[in-house]
Amino acid sequence: MLARLLKKPFVRAYATNNQLFLSKDVSKDIPTHELFQKLGFTKQPSSGLVHWLPLGLRILRNVENIIHTEMRRVDAEEVALSSLSAAALWKTTGRWDNRELFKLQDAKGADYCLAPTCEEEITDIVKAHVGSYKDLPLIMYQVARKYRDEKRPRAGLLRGREFLMKDAYSFDVSETHALVTYDKVYGAYKAIFRTLKIPFAIAEADTGDIGGSLSHEWHYVHHSGEDSLFTCSSCGSTSNIEKTLALPEVDSVPVDTAEVRYFLNESKDTLVALYYPVGRTLVPLFLKEEIPDLNTKSTLTDEETLAKFMEGEEIIGKSIIRVMDARLHDRTILPDFPVPFQRGSFTTLTGLPLVEAREGEVCYKCEEGRLERQKAIEVGHTFFLGTRYSAPLNATFTNEFGKPELMSMGCYGIGVSRIIAAIAEVTRDMEGFVWPATIAPFQVTIIEGPGKNYQQTVAMMDGVAQSLKEGGITVNRDFRPLERFGLGKKIRDSNLIGVPLVVIAGKALPRLEIEVRGKRWEQKETYLWQELRARKQEAWQWEVSEVKGREKHIVHVDGFVEVVQALLKDM
Amino acid sequence: MLARLLKKPFVRAYATNNQLFLSKDVSKDIPTHELFQKLGFTKQPSSGLVHWLPLGLRILRNVENIIHTEMRRVDAEEVALSSLSAAALWKTTGRWDNRELFKLQDAKGADYCLAPTCEEEITDIVKAHVGSYKDLPLIMYQVARKYRDEKRPRAGLLRGREFLMKDAYSFDVSETHALVTYDKVYGAYKAIFRTLKIPFAIAEADTGDIGGSLSHEWHYVHHSGEDSLFTCSSCGSTSNIEKTLALPEVDSVPVDTAEVRYFLNESKDTLVALYYPVGRTLVPLFLKEEIPDLNTKSTLTDEETLAKFMEGEEIIGKSIIRVMDARLHDRTILPDFPVPFQRGSFTTLTGLPLVEAREGEVCYKCEEGRLERQKAIEVGHTFFLGTRYSAPLNATFTNEFGKPELMSMGCYGIGVSRIIAAIAEVTRDMEGFVWPATIAPFQVTIIEGPGKNYQQTVAMMDGVAQSLKEGGITVNRDFRPLERFGLGKKIRDSNLIGVPLVVIAGKALPRLEIEVRGKRWEQKETYLWQELRARKQEAWQWEVSEVKGREKHIVHVDGFVEVVQALLKDM
Repeated sequence: MLARLLKKPFVRAYATNNQLFLSKDVSKDIPTHELFQKLGFTKQPSSGLVHWLPLGLRILRNVENIIHTEMRRVDAEEVALSSLSAAALWKTTGRWDNRELFKLQDAKGADYCLAPTCEEEITDIVKAHVGSYKDLPLIMYQVARKYRDEKRPRAGLLRGREFLMKDAYSFDVSETHALVTYDKVYGAYKAIFRTLKIPFAIAEADTGDIGGSLSHEWHYVHHSGEDSLFTCSSCGSTSNIEKTLALPEVDSVPVDTAEVRYFLNESKDTLVALYYPVGRTLVPLFLKEEIPDLNTKSTLTDEETLAKFMEGEEIIGKSIIRVMDARLHDRTILPDFPVPFQRGSFTTLTGLPLVEAREGEVCYKCEEGRLERQKAIEVGHTFFLGTRYSAPLNATFTNEFGKPELMSMGCYGIGVSRIIAAIAEVTRDMEGFVWPATIAPFQVTIIEGPGKNYQQTVAMMDGVAQSLKEGGITVNRDFRPLERFGLGKKIRDSNLIGVPLVVIAGKALPRLEIEVRGKRWEQKETYLWQELRARKQEAWQWEVSEVKGREKHIVHVDGFVEVVQALLKDM
Repeated sequence: MLARLLKKPFVRAYATNNQLFLSKDVSKDIPTHELFQKLGFTKQPSSGLVHWLPLGLRILRNVENIIHTEMRRVDAEEVALSSLSAAALWKTTGRWDNRELFKLQDAKGADYCLAPTCEEEITDIVKAHVGSYKDLPLIMYQVARKYRDEKRPRAGLLRGREFLMKDAYSFDVSETHALVTYDKVYGAYKAIFRTLKIPFAIAEADTGDIGGSLSHEWHYVHHSGEDSLFTCSSCGSTSNIEKTLALPEVDSVPVDTAEVRYFLNESKDTLVALYYPVGRTLVPLFLKEEIPDLNTKSTLTDEETLAKFMEGEEIIGKSIIRVMDARLHDRTILPDFPVPFQRGSFTTLTGLPLVEAREGEVCYKCEEGRLERQKAIEVGHTFFLGTRYSAPLNATFTNEFGKPELMSMGCYGIGVSRIIAAIAEVTRDMEGFVWPATIAPFQVTIIEGPGKNYQQTVAMMDGVAQSLKEGGITVNRDFRPLERFGLGKKIRDSNLIGVPLVVIAGKALPRLEIEVRGKRWEQKETYLWQELRARKQEAWQWEVSEVKGREKHIVHVDGFVEVVQALLKDM
């Protein structure tokens, strides 16, 4: 199927009504990033790089505008930082040795990277401009290109080497205030994702390389996603697999044998032995709270760890902690302990989750619910950072008592280009894209269909199109000759590029036909159009039917703009 | 003076009313790019790189919007191309060996540059999407960051290594059509520069490395500029010094002695000797029309050129052209001719301009006017390219007869960040920046001055500010405590950052005072506000005065929004 489609020549580009626009039959067989290219939304000049063409750029701008609106609402101030960032700042925070940084030298041999994120630069700016506690809180943000030399760029927009990101950074006088700001931005994110209509999930997440102690990921649930989320059937909490603590399944079969791995703490005077069921994936980070100084980043083998621990004659002052995964029990057979220590010198912790959760296991938080696993695409991430960056960069303010204090920070990302790829992936069907009305390249396609007088119809629709535009609705008019392209083909093309509504002005004039392509993602008792129709059905001769599974409205031109507005609100 | 100012600590940043904002006394002594930084418009993290902070970014967005509006009006379609461009395309057009390209390699060793301009990429895209003559004409544009590893970055925004540029590219079926499109974009440029208010000059220019045969530069005339323009006092034509042909001054002293330089044509069978007045700057390119195949890019010394010409025994088929600059005459002493050729085998051209024009010389075009020289800052450039890029990249369309033909192209740049630096440079005065109302970070500053009831005044101005915003006017409210900052200081701060109008709501309520900071760049019989006042003076108790050289209006709050709108229209 794919092969056959790829061999067909693309329908020729044509520039009408100021947009470059391609059209082509599609099917689910074509990967989404190829569909983007076939339909002229984007072009990928090299792996992981994207040129945005007019159709795709319209969507991008719409998403950007939604983000700007909500970020301004929480008093975030927009900046636009240089994409070139000098090595010095990155060395100060220890992030220069990142293999995914695109690095380059200028003619004078100075080192730069193409910024993948801007904690360093923004902290440096705020540090220079903020003097007193009165200047805080402050949220700075930008929508800017970011760079990451991904080893395996994926699906064009989904994991690009150059991508568009909204990155925001907050600065506060204390951790308490920073958490208030965190909540504020969290609220802005909710508003953004609600405007985008597609159902989303918020997951507790590990803070990873960025640092900090609290973080949430924002996801679209989809089988193609690379992330795994667990949601508890009882307390409802959702978390990334990297962060999901679980207890064994109710009535699970006892685990007979355990594996072990050895770690040291930072000061290397404590050996930590982690026992867990054979074949499961150990996550040492799960012990962050119980053993805060555990060196989970060690790349040593067990033998090397043990040898390091035994170095020197001194045994006094050294200790051993054994930790038993919650899935083990008294009779589980443990590997022999390889170090000659007295049994009494062990500390033993039991009942802790040490391995990746599995579907069906019990939520560690409420100890009641069953964990359900879903694949998801991460599109946003919010981090509480504390002093992770303000400390090394010495970003201080003067407090009420005239003393310098470190600012407490947060950072907040949304993958703008990725969100578009993710929404496309989640919503597309056999007929093509299905964009939410808030980001669709056009909200309405107008087709002058077969009618008595084509010229008169066009003139009338000029007025209708103008009214739609004045009502804040974006309109695409398909002026291609009907004899050559046909009504059916024109409707299919509009559906293909994901325009929520197709309007046909033809035989039924002065009534117009509206075919609904967009989806209603929210479950509601009554949708807006239904409320409107309850009042206006007769006045506007408003009929609704379903034709081949598709909702169709016929409505008098007098009520047309209001009907369209009402329909779009729920899509 | 400068030293003293630099030592003063900056007045602390404060974030009020959602903008980060700094304030500082200034004088002409501070270079403009430092003023940008001192006032918190921008920050330069490294030489030639710029971070846009909230105040500066507001100006940038305003300029962008003006450009978008006019580009859309000529049916240009927006794209957003990747900043990373693979080496292959650049090698095809012979532009990879540019020393100012920022080059980098990805982890796989593939070569990229940071795009300084996008002829290659856009031609490649259009080539893939355009099939037939029916798809043309097409104008594509973007406002995007560009990169150039300048050896001597200058004054921050003026010549940056990363800069914001509007670049547009046009594609047509023939040279004739391409020239029509060129005129269309030329018209859009005029509209853009008129909206920016500052007087501008359009100069005929050399096409340089970009290639093509027709080009215009768009300039702001200013003594700090690096370009030199000549304007004819009679025919009014303006051209860059690189392109200005001139005849000697009327009644000029005869030139007694000449210098000579030798060139070859491309096929090396013709020696061209250029004779010109001693001490003047020779421009071999001026002979483009008379000797089209002259190799003006030769880096050979005269000795090497002569040696090359004399290579081989064969003299038949070789010829010599002597060209005399128009400033020479019959009795000018010429250097001896170094090659043993018979006098009769020379061709001699006389009366041609061969050297850079000087102020006071006569215009070669009309042979009447006197040339006047001005320094200028180049902010835009339009090029007719022909097939310079479509030929090597084989960008063809199918003509009416089904045959492939090369597209004819144009390209059009505006230095967006540079335009802001140039306007700042041209307009600033002892009090700070003076932005045109169309791009000012705010158009109006509202200060609640000393009055009877501060709270009541603020409440009233909330309504006024709202009305202004609804009238499309951007407002900055200065809520800093009056006791601490003082009215005078607040007015100075608003003037400093270049806000065109300051409004004081205080003692005269319900009348408001408007101090005019903005300039009227156009000379008009009657300005808009004067027309309005002729009708409304009494109804609105509208008084106008001049206080310390500054225009001041006092007007009743009822007419306030209209007065502000009228005042801003001319600034």
